[in-house]
Amino acid sequence: MGLKPEARDLTLFVSDPEAAAAAVFTRNHFPGAPVILGREVIRGGRLRAVIANSKVSNVATGARGGENARRMAAACAAELGTTADRVLVSSTGVIGVQLPVERIEAGVRGMRADLQDDPLVGAEGIMTTDTHPKALSASVGDATITWVAKGSGMIEPNMATMLCYVFTDAALEPATLDRMLRAAVGSSFNMLSVDTDTSTSDTCAILANGLAGRVDDAAFAAALAAGCVRMAEIMGRDGEGAEHLVRVTVRGALDVGEARQVAKSVVNSPLVKTMVHGADPNVGRLLMAIGKCFECRIDPARTDAWINGCQVVRGGERLDFDDASVREALRAEVVDLEVALGVGDAGAVAYGCDLTEGYIRENASYYSS
Amino acid sequence: MGLKPEARDLTLFVSDPEAAAAAVFTRNHFPGAPVILGREVIRGGRLRAVIANSKVSNVATGARGGENARRMAAACAAELGTTADRVLVSSTGVIGVQLPVERIEAGVRGMRADLQDDPLVGAEGIMTTDTHPKALSASVGDATITWVAKGSGMIEPNMATMLCYVFTDAALEPATLDRMLRAAVGSSFNMLSVDTDTSTSDTCAILANGLAGRVDDAAFAAALAAGCVRMAEIMGRDGEGAEHLVRVTVRGALDVGEARQVAKSVVNSPLVKTMVHGADPNVGRLLMAIGKCFECRIDPARTDAWINGCQVVRGGERLDFDDASVREALRAEVVDLEVALGVGDAGAVAYGCDLTEGYIRENASYYSS
Repeated sequence: MGLKPEARDLTLFVSDPEAAAAAVFTRNHFPGAPVILGREVIRGGRLRAVIANSKVSNVATGARGGENARRMAAACAAELGTTADRVLVSSTGVIGVQLPVERIEAGVRGMRADLQDDPLVGAEGIMTTDTHPKALSASVGDATITWVAKGSGMIEPNMATMLCYVFTDAALEPATLDRMLRAAVGSSFNMLSVDTDTSTSDTCAILANGLAGRVDDAAFAAALAAGCVRMAEIMGRDGEGAEHLVRVTVRGALDVGEARQVAKSVVNSPLVKTMVHGADPNVGRLLMAIGKCFECRIDPARTDAWINGCQVVRGGERLDFDDASVREALRAEVVDLEVALGVGDAGAVAYGCDLTEGYIRENASYYSS
Repeated sequence: MGLKPEARDLTLFVSDPEAAAAAVFTRNHFPGAPVILGREVIRGGRLRAVIANSKVSNVATGARGGENARRMAAACAAELGTTADRVLVSSTGVIGVQLPVERIEAGVRGMRADLQDDPLVGAEGIMTTDTHPKALSASVGDATITWVAKGSGMIEPNMATMLCYVFTDAALEPATLDRMLRAAVGSSFNMLSVDTDTSTSDTCAILANGLAGRVDDAAFAAALAAGCVRMAEIMGRDGEGAEHLVRVTVRGALDVGEARQVAKSVVNSPLVKTMVHGADPNVGRLLMAIGKCFECRIDPARTDAWINGCQVVRGGERLDFDDASVREALRAEVVDLEVALGVGDAGAVAYGCDLTEGYIRENASYYSS
């Protein structure tokens, strides 16, 4: 639609026939107009299309923002010959700027004729600071699941500026989809943090149009969860300025809630993130980040830790490890930090990235107006 | 003691006579050996001296670390002719390295002869990444209160790598001191965050030796609170890599707990911090940071915000403010972000700093071994 000089800025996903659908949205108190509208639309459990623009997020835009989101849905419905309550709208980009709704209305006209099979084309239209379009597919029985997403900053989703759309031709009821989506999101996007900041636009939706017939529920749920984890890793790896994917695995926690809290605390610690960036095995920072979970059951004498397989902490004390090999391990693109708490049987994995000068440059120079 | 080639590395503070004392320590689950010992010592309510070294924090050092902290206290007591239970020990620096206790024992010998009146000399011995020594004094009636502190990174105290010692010649009981210290710390150091990371060594102690006699309790409590806020601001301003002190004032919150949570959320947001660094009035980031306090009572329609006195948000919407003047306001060394929630009468102020390439450089190149 011409909002971005040299990139795509409007994406349309269409399902023929109409699909059963479920979605989860940001818990931020300032949800964007598309999120407010999306919560209303998804109650119907049916979607024909998703339309999403980048550049402007239509957040903090008042009554006019709400009206513009509805106009965007209506324009899309008219193009496809459906009703506006079968269209999920998303907008991503700067907050506090009104949507260029006339441009979107003009842009969507005739778009149906340009629809393509390649999910990466749609992924391009929703990119903001992403360095590459994000999509992946997996098979479950005769059905296919395809994820299309964006996200690189303002990411500690809590549902999930990430947008993720999951499309499948498996036949599933909206209630089943909703349950499976919430479980999958809980251990993937909700365990992802680029910068601890929770976007006002986070949306993850799934559409199942049934063309491939029924599949095994457990197999589908497992494939959905695995794909969401993979997509969370792709987003962490493409975090703003990131040079490493950081994966924090916590074992031996009292319960899953505490395991998740400790994993998030480590993956979010600026000092752990800069330790990874500097490839310096300053393992005291790991203990610090575990230890600041004040309300969790943590026993220093039982706490062990590993960096990419090399044990660096035993019983709460720094081991006399081989410094050179741990430094080398920290230079791998994927850095696995493992923590065994020894106080229970629960575990969790959190996904994130290192903190670099690139993040600062990108966000200190981001021009809002 | 020669641990740092060109800087002081051991500090001794002595009170003649012995002082009533109170202290608060980090809540991190991996407290340093000096913190563990300090909790034991402070139960007596009396201190003759504080001895503190920089370079090595004596954290995650096991039984030998505990023994070394006791040896440090004993060496200090011998030098001063007192007992080890009248000495508060602190160590600050890298985690997971054993204390060079023989060097400290040698260093403390004869130190009594070198004691000076200038608190800045003591402040120099406890600096780590601080760019300047930190001390200030205030008068209450005939008494004087003097704060000596360090702290620039791994700072989101929760008591409160800050160390802060407060010395006064006012006459106060240990229980009164403890109550006043906890209240003052609650609205100062516990509202300070450089990087969300909570040190394993945070300590704030107060010693009152009574030489100036009794003073008005309320006046003393007020002066203590005001000095702690001022010292928290000094630390925020000297945050690792920081170029701005960021002060976030929240008004109209449901209760003080929620006001503090929202203020901390804004002061800790990497996107707000980089917005200040880049002097870009991207006010959507303010709303995002307020809105991610999921458990707080927040009503977008009643939310207003100001940047250094210029209103930028009204009723949850970005105002059409004069961009150039807000950009100019953001270039001030002290950036005041004010938020009015409009849902109650409670308020709070949080203290922090911007996030810069300097923070990344400093912490990615910090060499732990």
